[in-house]
Amino acid sequence: MRISNPFFKKNDNIKLKDILKILKIKKNYFNIKINDIRDLNDAKKNDISFFNNIKYFEKLKKSNVKFVISSEKYFCKIKEYCEPIIVSNILKSVYSITELFYPDSLDDSVDFHVMQPEKKNFKKIKFGKNVLLGKNVRIGQNTIIGHNTIIESNVTLGSNCVIGNNVLIKNTLIGKNVRVLDGAIIGKKGFGFFPEKNKNTRYPHIGMVIIEDNAEIGCNNTIDRGSLSNTIIGKNTFLDNQVHVAHNVNIGRNCIITGQVGFAGSSIIGDRVSIGGQAGISGHLKIGNNVQIGGGSGVVKNLPDNSKVMGYPAKNIRNFLKENR
Amino acid sequence: MRISNPFFKKNDNIKLKDILKILKIKKNYFNIKINDIRDLNDAKKNDISFFNNIKYFEKLKKSNVKFVISSEKYFCKIKEYCEPIIVSNILKSVYSITELFYPDSLDDSVDFHVMQPEKKNFKKIKFGKNVLLGKNVRIGQNTIIGHNTIIESNVTLGSNCVIGNNVLIKNTLIGKNVRVLDGAIIGKKGFGFFPEKNKNTRYPHIGMVIIEDNAEIGCNNTIDRGSLSNTIIGKNTFLDNQVHVAHNVNIGRNCIITGQVGFAGSSIIGDRVSIGGQAGISGHLKIGNNVQIGGGSGVVKNLPDNSKVMGYPAKNIRNFLKENR
Amino acid sequence: MRISNPFFKKNDNIKLKDILKILKIKKNYFNIKINDIRDLNDAKKNDISFFNNIKYFEKLKKSNVKFVISSEKYFCKIKEYCEPIIVSNILKSVYSITELFYPDSLDDSVDFHVMQPEKKNFKKIKFGKNVLLGKNVRIGQNTIIGHNTIIESNVTLGSNCVIGNNVLIKNTLIGKNVRVLDGAIIGKKGFGFFPEKNKNTRYPHIGMVIIEDNAEIGCNNTIDRGSLSNTIIGKNTFLDNQVHVAHNVNIGRNCIITGQVGFAGSSIIGDRVSIGGQAGISGHLKIGNNVQIGGGSGVVKNLPDNSKVMGYPAKNIRNFLKENR
Repeated sequence: MRISNPFFKKNDNIKLKDILKILKIKKNYFNIKINDIRDLNDAKKNDISFFNNIKYFEKLKKSNVKFVISSEKYFCKIKEYCEPIIVSNILKSVYSITELFYPDSLDDSVDFHVMQPEKKNFKKIKFGKNVLLGKNVRIGQNTIIGHNTIIESNVTLGSNCVIGNNVLIKNTLIGKNVRVLDGAIIGKKGFGFFPEKNKNTRYPHIGMVIIEDNAEIGCNNTIDRGSLSNTIIGKNTFLDNQVHVAHNVNIGRNCIITGQVGFAGSSIIGDRVSIGGQAGISGHLKIGNNVQIGGGSGVVKNLPDNSKVMGYPAKNIRNFLKENR
Repeated sequence: MRISNPFFKKNDNIKLKDILKILKIKKNYFNIKINDIRDLNDAKKNDISFFNNIKYFEKLKKSNVKFVISSEKYFCKIKEYCEPIIVSNILKSVYSITELFYPDSLDDSVDFHVMQPEKKNFKKIKFGKNVLLGKNVRIGQNTIIGHNTIIESNVTLGSNCVIGNNVLIKNTLIGKNVRVLDGAIIGKKGFGFFPEKNKNTRYPHIGMVIIEDNAEIGCNNTIDRGSLSNTIIGKNTFLDNQVHVAHNVNIGRNCIITGQVGFAGSSIIGDRVSIGGQAGISGHLKIGNNVQIGGGSGVVKNLPDNSKVMGYPAKNIRNFLKENR
Repeated sequence: MRISNPFFKKNDNIKLKDILKILKIKKNYFNIKINDIRDLNDAKKNDISFFNNIKYFEKLKKSNVKFVISSEKYFCKIKEYCEPIIVSNILKSVYSITELFYPDSLDDSVDFHVMQPEKKNFKKIKFGKNVLLGKNVRIGQNTIIGHNTIIESNVTLGSNCVIGNNVLIKNTLIGKNVRVLDGAIIGKKGFGFFPEKNKNTRYPHIGMVIIEDNAEIGCNNTIDRGSLSNTIIGKNTFLDNQVHVAHNVNIGRNCIITGQVGFAGSSIIGDRVSIGGQAGISGHLKIGNNVQIGGGSGVVKNLPDNSKVMGYPAKNIRNFLKENR
């Protein structure tokens, strides 16, 4: 289910010809209206999507999206299932189109709409000193917001949450009974850009952070929002201090993530996963349910359900301990 | 010596029968008053304590505490030295009892007693802008507190300290001539809870952080307070930036802890220990005096005095270098 | 080229005899005026410098500095090229002399000159709430400063910068079009001191941080200023969240430094270097241009141009992958 995103204003008047124009493709598709740009998980019939890795082929087959950005080498493979639009650099093209739909998503700035909350608008909510709230912030009953904390425009917080001091939250939807500890920074754009010689071009980031009920986010954590999809922290998952979660990461339910762990972008973590201190999870991995990852590990491969690993690179924990007796 | 803890209000009317009731044990010990719950290092005659690991057997023998929570498998071993109270889950029972004594220790909230300091109450102390002090904060002469810093109720700071900007200190006793650099977060509850399917149960944390004279705490450090005992940073020990110290860790004197080092819970570090950048120290370890730990190491075993180690897992540094020529 | 440093007031009346006096050397060089203390890269004829490692011998030969602090073992080697001043502890002597020239550089304190900006002095600049600016802060046009951010005295920011919320900047010169993300702490003294039994002696840090055009500094980064030279982040280099850069590190242009990477002091990083998450770079290394360092690596040796390494300790990435299949 696609959760509606209140943070970025979409241009609703994009036609296919506008897209082809910025891609410098000379073709005539008349005035077909395109609704949005989405990855293959989310794309609907009238959206545009992209295909840049053979491992998403099954998703493409199941999707009913029509127009798909891709490259020459996938053309024959995918043309049966969609109308491919062939470009030389898929990701760059995707981001140009994203910018076309969401012109404000290219870079973060400071939210100058924030001001101290008017108490009459927030009954049953306790605010610390110097709290700054943006426009249209929604906060559930009995939630507490600590001193010097900034909640930017359009953020939603559920009921019975405790948000600590010096916290910054933007582009984020937070469920019920969530703890966000002091100094956490949630929802800024991810570390994504096209390196160029004179000035890097930043990716648009139109995703959100979604933090589900009963989760706890540790002190000085940094949780970046997604680029095209969302970054998700599952229900009842606890993160310790100084954890870094990059864009598009999905962490499942009932996970235990210990101090100074880092997640590179776009990895999917199952339910009931426990990760020891300072471990690192590479990007674009799939970690199964009930996985245990020892402290200090560097995980560079997918891990099936119930794996127990340790080491750098991480391997079966029995082998690791045997080799290191 | 037990340092008195001003941060949590103890219920002074706990009888043994109240404890047995929450443990669902049907036994009749009359109305014996129990003073407090403590680990075996600290427990006195009228306290209640717990025994969950054979390595604490010598401590139990020396202790004169009478009532000790333990499990079936230790019963025969310990019954000569105490009056065991047998439960199925020792830690859960201990924490239920802790909550009984300290009903406010289950979760941290925001200190709403803080306000800008009244200068007349703090002569010879320099405050930055927007400083917030809780109730009963004591500050020694010539101490400096930076901008936007929050010192919660009952914290004590010695004389000649420099506390930086954007610092948060709670549940902490700080000695003389201590530096706490910008963005450090000291004294929040540790990352301890019982994972449960629908909602994790947090441990009570009734310990403090104690920072001894002349220590330096780096920028954006996170130092959690102890659960039953205290987290201690020894005299003249310096911590670099982005260091994480979990609950109950004791770091000795004259140690040098470099950037991004992490300590898991309850480890005891000796004096004059130096630890290189990004090293990790597992939980419940004993690191001797004069130990040198190379950068990036993962220490998973106790280390005797004067060890020099490196690697993951950490081994003798000569062997590490030989194997990695 | 020596960039002038507005942050530390130099004593302009130091004679050689003052220096010899604090070094407890009884020699009579009359009243020769010494202008400054500098390392061999920067020292001019009338400065004083130091020689503590044979790898700087070529620099010494090229330098026209006259007086050079060194130790007995280098005396014969260097006496042809300078007038050596022989001491038992070179670094301690250098720092005593630094303190003589820069008496305020021994320890950081809070900048009590900061106040909310007077808008009339900063046209075309947007300030968030509760911003604090020190004296003589210069800010270029169209720059944005986020809420609760502190910019200390004498800092310079170029035009078109975006400085986030809760940022602290001191002793720093920032170019044009730079992003500094929320919670970053830039320009505090480095983690340098002489460990002593009863109270460590801190190094003076008279260097700055220099951040060149188009760079991006991530959330909760800590970038320490140099001791005698400067810490530099090159043009168009991007740092992800929770990166730590120690004193005197020089990072080149167009580098990509991913989350939680740490740099120990004084390393020189080339241009177009990419470093994966959680990697650590030891101190005093030279990393060439176009180097790629895999996530989690521990780099302990110099790396030539175009190296691709991974592992702890880092080695050729092909060998690493082969050994860890």
